[in-house]
Amino acid sequence: MEFPAVAAPDEVSRRAALNRHYALVKPAGSLGRLEELGAWVAACQHANPPRAFQRPRVVVFAGDHGVAAKGVSAYPPSVTARMVTAFADGVAAVNVLANAAGATVRVVDVAVDADTGEPMSRHKVRRGSEPIDVADAMTADEALAAVAAGRAVADDEVDGGADVLLAGDMGIGNTTPAAVIVAAFTATEPVAVVGRGSGVDDRGWMRKVTVIRDALRRARPVMADPVALLRTVGGADFAAMAGFLAQAAVRRTPVILDGLAVGAAAMVAEELAPGAREWWCAAHLSAEPAHRLVLDHLDLTPLLDLGMRLGEGTGALAALPLVQAAIRLLAEMATFEQAGIEPAH
Amino acid sequence: MEFPAVAAPDEVSRRAALNRHYALVKPAGSLGRLEELGAWVAACQHANPPRAFQRPRVVVFAGDHGVAAKGVSAYPPSVTARMVTAFADGVAAVNVLANAAGATVRVVDVAVDADTGEPMSRHKVRRGSEPIDVADAMTADEALAAVAAGRAVADDEVDGGADVLLAGDMGIGNTTPAAVIVAAFTATEPVAVVGRGSGVDDRGWMRKVTVIRDALRRARPVMADPVALLRTVGGADFAAMAGFLAQAAVRRTPVILDGLAVGAAAMVAEELAPGAREWWCAAHLSAEPAHRLVLDHLDLTPLLDLGMRLGEGTGALAALPLVQAAIRLLAEMATFEQAGIEPAH
Repeated sequence: MEFPAVAAPDEVSRRAALNRHYALVKPAGSLGRLEELGAWVAACQHANPPRAFQRPRVVVFAGDHGVAAKGVSAYPPSVTARMVTAFADGVAAVNVLANAAGATVRVVDVAVDADTGEPMSRHKVRRGSEPIDVADAMTADEALAAVAAGRAVADDEVDGGADVLLAGDMGIGNTTPAAVIVAAFTATEPVAVVGRGSGVDDRGWMRKVTVIRDALRRARPVMADPVALLRTVGGADFAAMAGFLAQAAVRRTPVILDGLAVGAAAMVAEELAPGAREWWCAAHLSAEPAHRLVLDHLDLTPLLDLGMRLGEGTGALAALPLVQAAIRLLAEMATFEQAGIEPAH
Repeated sequence: MEFPAVAAPDEVSRRAALNRHYALVKPAGSLGRLEELGAWVAACQHANPPRAFQRPRVVVFAGDHGVAAKGVSAYPPSVTARMVTAFADGVAAVNVLANAAGATVRVVDVAVDADTGEPMSRHKVRRGSEPIDVADAMTADEALAAVAAGRAVADDEVDGGADVLLAGDMGIGNTTPAAVIVAAFTATEPVAVVGRGSGVDDRGWMRKVTVIRDALRRARPVMADPVALLRTVGGADFAAMAGFLAQAAVRRTPVILDGLAVGAAAMVAEELAPGAREWWCAAHLSAEPAHRLVLDHLDLTPLLDLGMRLGEGTGALAALPLVQAAIRLLAEMATFEQAGIEPAH
């Protein structure tokens, strides 16, 4: 799976936006991170001031995981399909936050272990995954198909007018493969990446550590090949997210990253399409311990730190109003000159 | 200046909201701070689920400060009046962020050293303040009048339908009295509370430390009396903000606090009306070093930490979408029961 080279966001526009911030009616730098954030959007859009996002689009990648049968989650695997139904009904957290932030939600069933029907199942690769502590999550062909699916979804959304993408995840058990991917990339011990996920109890936590340890042993030999890593210890949903994140960058479209699952996929996407990370903004720091390793690895600084750990794209949506605000400040504030004020003495 | 006793937000509604979070379709606690935040609004509204804010209202209290003539700011005092004009014209950061967050802005000229005209000057107490390192900021009568003005503005806004209030500040030089108030309440040395404010240079920073030191010496003897403290080392704008914040709590109306200047006034307001702090939410941690002392003193945890230090209410507005989102999650998400899912195994 080859991705075209990723162009960097436009440095000239970024600098022009930062310079514009010096001219706006406020002390230089006094809007803190919002100034850099607006400049990042300017760079992505190759425009200063940047334009407010017209079509923010959340894509939730759903898939089941064989390891869930081993009791690594507080919920049974059947909940994945039920939550996908809740997304379709518009009653889950991602829907509420999307409505609040002016975004729309698309659900892509990549590997749910149930029939979800059209249009959600259009890119379905398989049902569930094999238990990654003892077997590959899927076949090599399936891994390629899943990356291609995510890539096709990104193309589809960008062609449909999405000017900012937010990736989300849904899958009971998915913090286990996520933790394995993070541990593999960062050479970290299982106990340092394992978290409570959706709220597993102490015995489940111990089972999860064991699964992560065994899967990590299986991951190490294939680490140099990102698609092989996805095949071995990821899952079709992770492969699709990685393809989606890589292709968004190829298509020069900014992405607001969510939490751990999306972050693990982002680590793979950066391998698939080096430089993609410059098109991403980290929405938040998840309560899942492995997420800090993701952000350090990708050299991204989160906007929010609210102890969220839901996934679905909810962290990304919580940050979207800040990104929109950062754009509007650049676009709508008067300059000192317009206000008839000397910039500084 | 006596304030009626402040009733606590309703604990029953708060607990009901937290319990509701256990029933909504997501792992318990997975929305982190957003869960507590929604429960706080439920408690303030005595309603579960809480209602989305219909009329968020920003009130910017503007005033000049005698110490500005001593070179403690990067800007000349005349900028206060120019910025008030920019607010009225709708072109400043506070206006842009208010538009983005669905709030409206009112500017109250408490002590601007210029004629701002009706309706902004309706509550004007005086022009500027005396330099607090050598003289009282204002007279005792003026201090009482300023607290009463802020109180009247809170009444006016609550009676006008505001269901959440955001306080903001504008005044060249105002981080100096703010730092003095914080140092007085927290028994802190001047160098630990002084910041760059709007961006003062090294020599200005040294002048500022000296002014804070001298004003702090003048503050200590009157510390037990909040109105005397405002008179001695505050300013009419700080007195009005304190009255506003205290009265908002008396009127059982939630407030989103901004940064250092509002925070210093909030410390005084908590003395004027003990328990008022339970009606406040800390929007952000300012880049001004004294602000952390404010939040520690009031035992409030900021939602955002974006290195902002503009004032005007901009930090509060940056956080408003999070508060609205927290409300909507409680009000609009389905329960596990409605979604036909078992809550946890």
